[in-house]
Amino acid sequence: MVLKLHGLSVSISTARVVACLHEKSVDFELVPVDLFACENKQPEFLAKNPFGKVPVLEDDDITLFESRAITAYVAEKFKETGHDLIRHENLNEAALVKVWTEVESKQYNPAIDPIIFEFFAKPVVGMEPDQTVIDASLEKLKKVLDVYEARLSNKKFLAGDFYSLADLHHFPGTFYFMKTPWSSLVNDRPHVKAWWEEISAKPASKKVAEGMNFGEV
Amino acid sequence: MVLKLHGLSVSISTARVVACLHEKSVDFELVPVDLFACENKQPEFLAKNPFGKVPVLEDDDITLFESRAITAYVAEKFKETGHDLIRHENLNEAALVKVWTEVESKQYNPAIDPIIFEFFAKPVVGMEPDQTVIDASLEKLKKVLDVYEARLSNKKFLAGDFYSLADLHHFPGTFYFMKTPWSSLVNDRPHVKAWWEEISAKPASKKVAEGMNFGEV
Repeated sequence: MVLKLHGLSVSISTARVVACLHEKSVDFELVPVDLFACENKQPEFLAKNPFGKVPVLEDDDITLFESRAITAYVAEKFKETGHDLIRHENLNEAALVKVWTEVESKQYNPAIDPIIFEFFAKPVVGMEPDQTVIDASLEKLKKVLDVYEARLSNKKFLAGDFYSLADLHHFPGTFYFMKTPWSSLVNDRPHVKAWWEEISAKPASKKVAEGMNFGEV
Repeated sequence: MVLKLHGLSVSISTARVVACLHEKSVDFELVPVDLFACENKQPEFLAKNPFGKVPVLEDDDITLFESRAITAYVAEKFKETGHDLIRHENLNEAALVKVWTEVESKQYNPAIDPIIFEFFAKPVVGMEPDQTVIDASLEKLKKVLDVYEARLSNKKFLAGDFYSLADLHHFPGTFYFMKTPWSSLVNDRPHVKAWWEEISAKPASKKVAEGMNFGEV
């Protein structure tokens, strides 16, 4: 059975999984979920993910949710195919992938997510972005990016001199962020800029970006 | 070299790692970090974790931070010793451990953390708890616990009929929560209550709880 991914190509968390599937050259079917019609709150969807969020992956006899758990599963299941995203043959490198995957989840994402929500999502439903929220998040993001700049002056990628899930997880959020008026936060930090250019030039990233036209009319 | 864990036994994120080390019967030295003296913002500590947060684990030639990345490393390194916390021999079970570990991180922790901060941490520094924040968090927590109640009516533990990192990660936060006036949120849900009793009765949990006397004078 081909893998079924329930989600939306414009959604950051769905795109995180799509990027991983493309990177591993795994065939899948994207099953759209109509969030505007609250399809994700209907019993059929809640049976797949009781928290009512996209994405959900169905593969043979297993149903998974939470984007970062899904990518870890895909990277593990297909570890012998394509680029090794989890460094499964080296305990220390694998641990550093986990550290920087957690950094994305706990430090980077909480800073960048509110900016994207305010700037792209609110206007879609006719609401005004809250500049106070954006400004506070930009301050947080600067501090995180200062750490990244130092890290990336020693290592080519976040977990080490190898591209991994830790970098991949940053792609969708940063892709949208770079379309905001504050992209200089990345571009003014030479090592972060070089890292972003490397990540976003990857064929898998370009492919997932094709579906990420949120906010464009 | 014995493992060095830099942190505080009262800290939830440090206790998460301590619980894992006890569960795996791994010897370690707890190196206290003086947060009141901002030791975590000094160059020596920032060289270990540039985000200036506890805990940090040093093991031979590797330094790790982010509690959930550390527990994953410990559970992987010592997978043949003691209870298998990551179900490393079964891809599907391992994936479900990851899903419910992410649920703790993304759904449970953001609901319970502000309650503990307001109720225990603020009074320590002479501040009043903000009941609005507590009430909003309790509402979030109820929804998460409703999902847990349904899940635990079918499975003994969150990821399946086996104790795993997904359950262990819940211990420290829930331990403090059960000392608040809102413990009925757990006790009124019979399957969540039974699960909590099972987790908190584990020898490793009891051992870590000995150091968790935050808010007690």
